[in-house]
Amino acid sequence: MVRLRFSVQLGYEITEWPCDFIFNIQAARTRCQTIVDEHLVINQPGVAQLPTAMHTDVAHGNRFIRLRANAGPLTVRYDATVDILHHAVAPEKLQEMPIPQLPPEVLPYLYPSRYCESDKLNVLAMREFGKLPPGYDRVLAIQRWVQARIGFTSGASNPNTSAVDSLSSSAGVCRDFSHLMIALCRAMSIPARFATGIDYGADPALGPTDFHAYVEVFLSNRWYLFDASGVAIPMGFVRFGTGRDAADVPFATIFGGLTSFVPVVSIEAVNDPANGFEVPRHRTEALSTDGNYLSMS
Amino acid sequence: MVRLRFSVQLGYEITEWPCDFIFNIQAARTRCQTIVDEHLVINQPGVAQLPTAMHTDVAHGNRFIRLRANAGPLTVRYDATVDILHHAVAPEKLQEMPIPQLPPEVLPYLYPSRYCESDKLNVLAMREFGKLPPGYDRVLAIQRWVQARIGFTSGASNPNTSAVDSLSSSAGVCRDFSHLMIALCRAMSIPARFATGIDYGADPALGPTDFHAYVEVFLSNRWYLFDASGVAIPMGFVRFGTGRDAADVPFATIFGGLTSFVPVVSIEAVNDPANGFEVPRHRTEALSTDGNYLSMS
Amino acid sequence: MVRLRFSVQLGYEITEWPCDFIFNIQAARTRCQTIVDEHLVINQPGVAQLPTAMHTDVAHGNRFIRLRANAGPLTVRYDATVDILHHAVAPEKLQEMPIPQLPPEVLPYLYPSRYCESDKLNVLAMREFGKLPPGYDRVLAIQRWVQARIGFTSGASNPNTSAVDSLSSSAGVCRDFSHLMIALCRAMSIPARFATGIDYGADPALGPTDFHAYVEVFLSNRWYLFDASGVAIPMGFVRFGTGRDAADVPFATIFGGLTSFVPVVSIEAVNDPANGFEVPRHRTEALSTDGNYLSMS
Amino acid sequence: MVRLRFSVQLGYEITEWPCDFIFNIQAARTRCQTIVDEHLVINQPGVAQLPTAMHTDVAHGNRFIRLRANAGPLTVRYDATVDILHHAVAPEKLQEMPIPQLPPEVLPYLYPSRYCESDKLNVLAMREFGKLPPGYDRVLAIQRWVQARIGFTSGASNPNTSAVDSLSSSAGVCRDFSHLMIALCRAMSIPARFATGIDYGADPALGPTDFHAYVEVFLSNRWYLFDASGVAIPMGFVRFGTGRDAADVPFATIFGGLTSFVPVVSIEAVNDPANGFEVPRHRTEALSTDGNYLSMS
Repeated sequence: MVRLRFSVQLGYEITEWPCDFIFNIQAARTRCQTIVDEHLVINQPGVAQLPTAMHTDVAHGNRFIRLRANAGPLTVRYDATVDILHHAVAPEKLQEMPIPQLPPEVLPYLYPSRYCESDKLNVLAMREFGKLPPGYDRVLAIQRWVQARIGFTSGASNPNTSAVDSLSSSAGVCRDFSHLMIALCRAMSIPARFATGIDYGADPALGPTDFHAYVEVFLSNRWYLFDASGVAIPMGFVRFGTGRDAADVPFATIFGGLTSFVPVVSIEAVNDPANGFEVPRHRTEALSTDGNYLSMS
Repeated sequence: MVRLRFSVQLGYEITEWPCDFIFNIQAARTRCQTIVDEHLVINQPGVAQLPTAMHTDVAHGNRFIRLRANAGPLTVRYDATVDILHHAVAPEKLQEMPIPQLPPEVLPYLYPSRYCESDKLNVLAMREFGKLPPGYDRVLAIQRWVQARIGFTSGASNPNTSAVDSLSSSAGVCRDFSHLMIALCRAMSIPARFATGIDYGADPALGPTDFHAYVEVFLSNRWYLFDASGVAIPMGFVRFGTGRDAADVPFATIFGGLTSFVPVVSIEAVNDPANGFEVPRHRTEALSTDGNYLSMS
Repeated sequence: MVRLRFSVQLGYEITEWPCDFIFNIQAARTRCQTIVDEHLVINQPGVAQLPTAMHTDVAHGNRFIRLRANAGPLTVRYDATVDILHHAVAPEKLQEMPIPQLPPEVLPYLYPSRYCESDKLNVLAMREFGKLPPGYDRVLAIQRWVQARIGFTSGASNPNTSAVDSLSSSAGVCRDFSHLMIALCRAMSIPARFATGIDYGADPALGPTDFHAYVEVFLSNRWYLFDASGVAIPMGFVRFGTGRDAADVPFATIFGGLTSFVPVVSIEAVNDPANGFEVPRHRTEALSTDGNYLSMS
Repeated sequence: MVRLRFSVQLGYEITEWPCDFIFNIQAARTRCQTIVDEHLVINQPGVAQLPTAMHTDVAHGNRFIRLRANAGPLTVRYDATVDILHHAVAPEKLQEMPIPQLPPEVLPYLYPSRYCESDKLNVLAMREFGKLPPGYDRVLAIQRWVQARIGFTSGASNPNTSAVDSLSSSAGVCRDFSHLMIALCRAMSIPARFATGIDYGADPALGPTDFHAYVEVFLSNRWYLFDASGVAIPMGFVRFGTGRDAADVPFATIFGGLTSFVPVVSIEAVNDPANGFEVPRHRTEALSTDGNYLSMS
């Protein structure tokens, strides 16, 4: 078990009214991720209480906050402590699943999406990975292929950048690595999805703690974690949202005019083995933080 | 009320085993579309019964058939009679909805998707439609804009073609018109989705009856029908599936090697006013075949 | 006649050796543009003289400076006075030319190029401009169409941005307006080319004097000036280079690692009517600063 | 010395008048390619003589035929015998040249062009080839890289397909292999250009003799031949045109409405060693059919 305490602080200066927001910055509620405590503060000077609406996408556990803010400064601060229980399996036990055996909820993750144009990468994927034996190792081969071709470069991509764009630009951030890995998995008929959140233990050379994006691949009836960009420790991921790609789970979707400040993010791990809390570390097992679909249905 | 009888026949010659299929060719079950009778025949010579799995995406009513076929010929034939009850409203009563008031299930239709890159069209959309008064007429203006810029040309597009591609190519089919209209609506923060099916009353100059793709836009708590390509009669649409774009609801997704034959589609309308069945005709009212979300939740 | 005095100053801090440059910042030598005086200073502290090579592309009059610089600061300053004689014609006299009558040197400007993908815009161009009577007014219609669809926005585009990109992004700078106008002309089989330089009299609301890009279209055996972005005065253009698009005539092509400083550009017009020098002004006539191809061959 | 006899026959049915053509199907006149005899027949039934204009781009030796045809059938037949003298060098003697030493005429081949978007491939190229020692072997490494990633597939690309498109589609024909190889060379600051023609000795598995496209790379003051798609024998190439990419040297550019028939091409090699004519064969030396630029200037 891992216990992580983190906070996210977002700041804006709103210049146009109305300015609507949809935030996805709360820890998802999943079978393996339990919220011990959490605290959300939305603050606009001089406003007693901004009207906000919360909802949870029950299929994924994604939680959304909607609010309409006034002109002027706005800060949103979220603090939480979460417990994460990892399902760990020896990689060699994991199988790619035949299409007819996939749970229906998983089928959408076979299809191309905005930033994962798997429909354009079928021939490439078959050429590169078609002769490898199916299974976890083939997915790892896809991950390594992506890491060998893309350089981690802040500022090399923008919110419009897609997997096919990254293939030629050869540079990007965790979001771009994830999109390309997902697109290649789908092109091989392996369901793959995009996950966002923050993570404990990222390579400090990449700068201060920040949001993170990673990949989940469906093998043997569960979604398994893959850190497409290879800069983080999967055991230290806190999940905010999962979706087909970054279009589904932006940290903030903004409808209106404003200036954004750099988010401030912090995270720490509880080191208390006596109570069962260990610090995230690199593992050789495959990890999942989602349930087994066979037992769900 | 409209009663439509139709049949869809698909034929393949499968060259590689295994060949998996996901079909979305059955009439959706929705609040307004009732299946009176239906019949599905899947046939492979010499095979007593192919293993098939059916499932329904309850959120949308989309129905999927999965099957794994052997090498050799395969035919899939579906016949059905459906009754469709249209909710008709005077267009001037329909409003665009503020983001905070949208039902949560509708929010995904604000985001860009594979073939509807609304994130690349924000400036264009604001420039063209930003000064029009919000409402049904603005959506109609978007539809007319698309029809003025795209020519209906069979073979001018392919399965990879997206809204942004169509903007420069200026040619496409119903799928392409729909993608561009959806992308522009979303760029204006108006939820829009893609619908597939077949339709009664299409312009015979376009060839024999075929599959159709159209658009649904969310206004005043309901999804309203728009025929982006302007070649059909919205009252004559039978819905098979709705999704974010063509990636979500292909008629057939194929995993394997084969030759496809041209689908054979036929449809007729029951003309029986005494029993309440009228033949689809062009209407001035806005039409919806989905329920009111306010009353659903 | 117009006499313009201008200077261009470029500054770099070179971090990697060797760093090669190709500059195109000198006034072109053309039939209508005469260099009264000019002065070029290339300076690297502590280096007596950097090896430089100059050459002129005689077909276009474009002049290039190549140099290999050391690590450290580099400044390049060019000052010149040029006299420009404009060939002015009543627009209604100008004709589009049949393909068989075009001078051979002009044919390359019918073809698509890196940033002017006319091959993707044929249908769009025919749809928008195919029914207009051929001639200068049709070219003006293309220019107006571009100006109605693209907003002048600094920072909205980057060096990779092409005409097709601008069509969907709807925002750009003079380079992007020019590329889209050129692509549309070529899609109509009207030869069009890209020109760079600086200009007198640009709209001061757009910031300090800067480099400029504009369009030349071939009509009635001459290249005529069009200011695609509509922010400048064609009579005030000083030409540095002409080519198929921005790929041919970049102000500076750099092979190596460095930091660039913002160029400093200034220009003034000699106001001396007694000696035949007038200040650039908007004109109703079509203007050319190139010779008549009929008389050249 | 190689002596090749070939013929090219093009057929059209013209439906719209006027229909203008620009053909580039004649053997280029270069220092190494001599035309022994040639015969051109342009035929339209009932037309005594179609007005045609010929011109040669002296810089490259490319020859163009322009004609305006009437409605009805048109055939163009060109027969020629050419002698080709190959400059052959041991590959290890060939150097990449520093930018300052490149002949000015060669500089345009450093820049991106319509189908060779080298500006988008800089990071990828540096990552893949940046650490290899400069020289002929690095260019060979680029060629092998392209051949390892693209499958030769007729019909997988279209006239709009570019190098960046091929990178994701992973399939194409000789034109696409050439574009990608050229783009990668330019991204490494190695001048590269596109050549068209026909070839003796192509792999018969690819179908009947057809037009061919290949690459020329500038090393040690000459343009050297590379068969990007690896299906042909460089010693058997007859050159029609060279340019920046396929946009510059299409076999036929057509302005008007028509139906095209499949071109009929044939070629044979004179096997007459006694008189110095050998049959094209694979060679280990690097081959050039252009002069040495040092001695030209």
